Parts: sequence; structure tokens; C-alpha cells
Amino acid sequence: MLNLAQATDPGWVQRALADLDEVLIDHAHCEKKAASTAVSLLFRYPERHELLEPLSQLAREELEHFELMLGHLDRLGIRFYRQLPSPYAGELMKAIRPNEPERAVDTLLCLSLIEARSCERMKLLADALEEPSLRELYASLLASEARHHQTYVDLARAIEPDVDVRGRLRELAQHEASVIAASPEMPRMHA
Amino acid sequence: MLNLAQATDPGWVQRALADLDEVLIDHAHCEKKAASTAVSLLFRYPERHELLEPLSQLAREELEHFELMLGHLDRLGIRFYRQLPSPYAGELMKAIRPNEPERAVDTLLCLSLIEARSCERMKLLADALEEPSLRELYASLLASEARHHQTYVDLARAIEPDVDVRGRLRELAQHEASVIAASPEMPRMHA
Repeated sequence: MLNLAQATDPGWVQRALADLDEVLIDHAHCEKKAASTAVSLLFRYPERHELLEPLSQLAREELEHFELMLGHLDRLGIRFYRQLPSPYAGELMKAIRPNEPERAVDTLLCLSLIEARSCERMKLLADALEEPSLRELYASLLASEARHHQTYVDLARAIEPDVDVRGRLRELAQHEASVIAASPEMPRMHA
Repeated sequence: MLNLAQATDPGWVQRALADLDEVLIDHAHCEKKAASTAVSLLFRYPERHELLEPLSQLAREELEHFELMLGHLDRLGIRFYRQLPSPYAGELMKAIRPNEPERAVDTLLCLSLIEARSCERMKLLADALEEPSLRELYASLLASEARHHQTYVDLARAIEPDVDVRGRLRELAQHEASVIAASPEMPRMHA
């Protein structure tokens, strides 16, 4: 369902739990970044009307999650601060073809894979965490991530109905698997 | 209450009504831009914790208004497309001092003045428009703009309690008045 080519290495969740504060802060940054990326596409594709309302709604939901994460950080006494991001998203996006409409399709599919990876990892966190309200948080968020994954795939199909979106998604999922496997072992959602 | 140094020239609303489709499209772009600017400040000031939740909430509200405007454009059969923006915001922002913390205070106060000018002009539109649901739209939106104006002023005060925010707002309001007076007569919210 998530279209990922490779499951997360079992060591990731142990590393995440060992440096949980850093991972929670990174997760807040990821929600903010997801909102910002969706908003940036509203500027890049104003004439792609089928994208506008779904992307705006998605950005609002990511901002709600950002606020939710800030609330949890506050509750746990963890200070939010600027972090060095994981190279994951930048490396993943290098596979985007430069010309339109391929650029639009690839961008949407890369974003769908980021959501899919987030969803997979939130499930791992929901199962492994001991603090009840963090378990509950991740159990609730992973459903949104799965939905966002599907929204991005649907949008790619909507803007280019004649393109083999399914085939391209498989190719990009292979690339995503190699990017995540090569990521440095940082305490991050996507590392 | 709105802290504007100069009321809008009475000719503006007549020009806006004469080219209403363009003004409605511009207004949708303005809501999107307002959201994007608030999100960009989340990236610029992650350590200014008092800004984060209010700016995220404000960005969500601007995105809701963007979606609302897209709905009205659709209802009225007006196609949303890329427009040349008014030079207003760029010219206004030139008064922002380059060093922190002045840069943060000035940015928030310039944004407060943009919201104030939007609010003033939405009132003019609400009074002058004939189409009932557009009258209603502007009557409802202008209350949010007034609130956002106040939010930005309050945030400037919150991050720099020792600065004479009121005095700086008066100076920037003078600058805003000269920028809006010098704006070209385009069919735009801020021209």
C-alpha cells in the first residue's frame, strides 16, 4: 500500500529511541518543511488548478501537526531549535527530471514517498515507544501520512493522466530505498 | 485602530470594481503569499518560540482564505492564473533594518501594516460591491485581517519588550502611506 521498495532497517528504531529528543525535534521540522513544500508548489503551478485546493489543505494539516509536535516538545520539556537536516530529501529529489511535465509528476511522487517513509517509521515508533501519549500521537499521525502519500500519487495521476505514474513510482521507490540505505546514522526521521 | 497613516484614495475602489476579476485573482494570490511569508518566518526564527504557534495558526488561516477565494473564483467562472504582483510589498519591505533584532521587529510590523491595508480595503469592497455573497465574503474576511494586524503587532512586542514598538510602527506607517500613494494604478488589492 505504501509503495516503498525496501523496509526500514530494524536498527533505526533502536537508534531513534536512544536519541528520542533529537528525533522529536526533527519530526517537528519535517512537518514544517512538508507544509512549506506544499505551499511552494502553489506558487510553482498556479495554473494546475487540480493541485491548488488539495495542496493548500495538505499544507494546513502539516501545520496542525507542527503545532501538535511543538505542544509535545513543550510538555516533555524539550527545547525546539535549528537542526542540521538529514540529507535524505535533497538526495531523493535529485531524481526529479528537469523538464515539465515530468518535473511536476516526479516532484509529487517524491513527496508521496517521503510521506510513505514517514508513515512506515511512525508505525515503528508507535509500536516501540513506552510513553503513552507519544504512542497515541504516532498512531494517530501515521494515518494522516498514509493519506498524504495517496493524495500525492492521486495528484500526479490527475495532472498527467496519460503518464505511467505507477511505473515511475516504482522507479522512484527504488531510488528512495537506495537513498535511505545510504543515509548517515543521524537521529532523524529520515536517516 | 489599524495604525495606518493615510486612508486609501477614494478612486481605488472605483478602479477595483471596474476590473473586479483581476482584483479577486490578486486577492487569492495575496492570501497564498501571506501564508507563505508566515511559514518562511518559522524557518528564519526557529528559536523565537513565542512566534511559532501564532505564525503557524495564522498561516493556516491564510490558506483557508486562499481556498475560500478559489471557491469564489470558481463560482464566478473566473480562471485563476499567474499575475504580475503589485510592487507594494517589495517596496514596503525595503524599510526593514538589516540587523537583528531590528529585522525581526520591522518584518512583523510591515506584515501588520499589510494586513491593516487589506482590512481597510476589504471594508471599502464590502460596502461598494453589489454581489451579495462577495459583500458577505469581504465583511467576514476584514475581521480576520484586523485580528492578524493586531497579532503581528503583539508578536513584535513579545519578542522585543524593550523596544519602542509603537514608535517604530508609526514610522513604518508613514513609509507604507508613501509606498501605497506611489503604487501604479493596477487592479490589485495593494496598488
